[in-house]
Amino acid sequence: MTEYLQLLLEAIEDPADPALERSVQGRLDSLTKPPGSLGRLEEIARWYCLARGEALPAAPRKALCVFCADHGVTEEGVSAYPREVTRQMVLNFAAGGAAINALCRQGGVEATIVDVGVDSEPFGPPVRDEKIARGTRNFAVEPAMTRGEALQALEAGARLAAEAVDAGATLLAAGEMGIGNTTAAAALGCALTGRAADELAGRGTGVDEAGRRHKAAVVERALAARKPDSADPVGALAAVGGLEIAAMAGYFLGAAARRVPAVVDGFIATAAALAAVRLRKETLGYLLWSHESAEQGHRVLLQELGAKSLLQMGFRLGEGSGAAVAMGLVDQALAVYREMATFDSAGVSAG
Amino acid sequence: MTEYLQLLLEAIEDPADPALERSVQGRLDSLTKPPGSLGRLEEIARWYCLARGEALPAAPRKALCVFCADHGVTEEGVSAYPREVTRQMVLNFAAGGAAINALCRQGGVEATIVDVGVDSEPFGPPVRDEKIARGTRNFAVEPAMTRGEALQALEAGARLAAEAVDAGATLLAAGEMGIGNTTAAAALGCALTGRAADELAGRGTGVDEAGRRHKAAVVERALAARKPDSADPVGALAAVGGLEIAAMAGYFLGAAARRVPAVVDGFIATAAALAAVRLRKETLGYLLWSHESAEQGHRVLLQELGAKSLLQMGFRLGEGSGAAVAMGLVDQALAVYREMATFDSAGVSAG
Repeated sequence: MTEYLQLLLEAIEDPADPALERSVQGRLDSLTKPPGSLGRLEEIARWYCLARGEALPAAPRKALCVFCADHGVTEEGVSAYPREVTRQMVLNFAAGGAAINALCRQGGVEATIVDVGVDSEPFGPPVRDEKIARGTRNFAVEPAMTRGEALQALEAGARLAAEAVDAGATLLAAGEMGIGNTTAAAALGCALTGRAADELAGRGTGVDEAGRRHKAAVVERALAARKPDSADPVGALAAVGGLEIAAMAGYFLGAAARRVPAVVDGFIATAAALAAVRLRKETLGYLLWSHESAEQGHRVLLQELGAKSLLQMGFRLGEGSGAAVAMGLVDQALAVYREMATFDSAGVSAG
Repeated sequence: MTEYLQLLLEAIEDPADPALERSVQGRLDSLTKPPGSLGRLEEIARWYCLARGEALPAAPRKALCVFCADHGVTEEGVSAYPREVTRQMVLNFAAGGAAINALCRQGGVEATIVDVGVDSEPFGPPVRDEKIARGTRNFAVEPAMTRGEALQALEAGARLAAEAVDAGATLLAAGEMGIGNTTAAAALGCALTGRAADELAGRGTGVDEAGRRHKAAVVERALAARKPDSADPVGALAAVGGLEIAAMAGYFLGAAARRVPAVVDGFIATAAALAAVRLRKETLGYLLWSHESAEQGHRVLLQELGAKSLLQMGFRLGEGSGAAVAMGLVDQALAVYREMATFDSAGVSAG
């Protein structure tokens, strides 16, 4: 662990605060609606207030990072798309043509595209250059990264979160792009939970059942060879993770250290969040689980985290798209919480 | 049936159009994402385009009506809140203090509050005066409305939809306020489907299990006395419905007649939508089922309609709140559909 990361982890405090929670609940129950009748929107408001440590926070200012990197494990033929697509999609993000661009524009979310390890020359602005390597190594035959590279990626993510907060963001989200990264996320998930490869290896962006079984076999072989230690999340990230996955883990830690809540996207982001929570369990209270993806391993990781997803809409794109969709629900929750009249102020009889 | 309603029903065409659907699907699959990877957002885009009859519609312009009315059946002690709350909440809507106001402001939705039968003097602007009666009669002892009143309410709803469309709206939604209206919606649902009162009577805004059983008994008694005919939706609305429920049914029909899609809120709006679909089955293709509410009968009505809800967030407020939340998802779906680059235009390799 680096000095920076050590300090970061120690700065993350459990957001639980019974007095603040009573105050937030009191306000929710004073609003002109039957208590609890807005269901999970009320939960979101409580979560946001507790994470911010405020009884009446301002409307969220939203920022999202898309962390992009390549994966050596694509050599094993685990993906339905060629490796070049990572680079091509970064150019698409930079040009504003991807799903995440459309969603962020629509929702008023400041988006940053981060190259943390794409197999390419540096892209130049607007892509943020945090390239640590031109992709990971093939973890089916050797460790994906050195421990130093994994730490660098964690730090890059943490710095990006801190920068977004310094720029005024009060709600963060992370997503990713990286051909091959459902395989890395499955391997990391197995490493951290002890689950079988077959439970976590899914169809990714579109391989068939034979392709899925092949992915599971590649993951199983890698785990047997790399022997990652579940008690050492940094080591597990280095062994079978990805640069963008480590960066997302760092981003979630960086958000939590600044008391800024973060929305987690799909399967890959959840694997990163799991690594973050294993590094510092207090991080959990700052995270919102945007959706349960169509990728089969996602449900398993959510279960391991005791996490309840908001949306079940069959998303399996990544890029932070599900998180961007859920950010709209956070806006709605805070609008209701901040703006509604109380039974007293509106002169409405309580039940 | 009035001449106006007869013409309205005949104007509603099935939005199914295989050629248009292929064109929309072709565009969806050309966008830079794995086919289908945005799940239900892609379904929403397809639904919207088909309802509008356009391959590339403009971003939605949104309007929502909250239909408000009182219910004679409150005399039976079926609600956790006193009857005056309907009038008080209309004042709260007018002052902008309710959940639906906050959600509509946040989402850029033009909201109209419609008094179709509140037990009060007329409210004056900004409340739209379409008052037909000062509430329905107690359907446990006599029909809730005359057939003429039910037709008037249907027409009022249809006119409001037409006005919104004339003012430029391309996406409508309806919600309601009316103390006692989960009882009316349960009775109407039973009348139209033959389901048992115990299946459709739920806890509403907060009665306990004894209260719920009492509601079910009231509904059962009313059905036995009124004997509504499931093949006569107008008669069923008059017998055991509500003025705001009939108006919502008319609103959905009015939207469909103008090829404008509409988002249905919770249990009560779904009962109204069921009546609309029974009056003209082609209406179904214009409706989006925003959420599955915590009210137990909602799932049953959705099943009867073969409808799949978007959100499962434990909402049970009404007012159109769940529909307003789901309108944000329609905005997101259309942003993605309209703005994303294609594989060709972005130079991204397809899988």
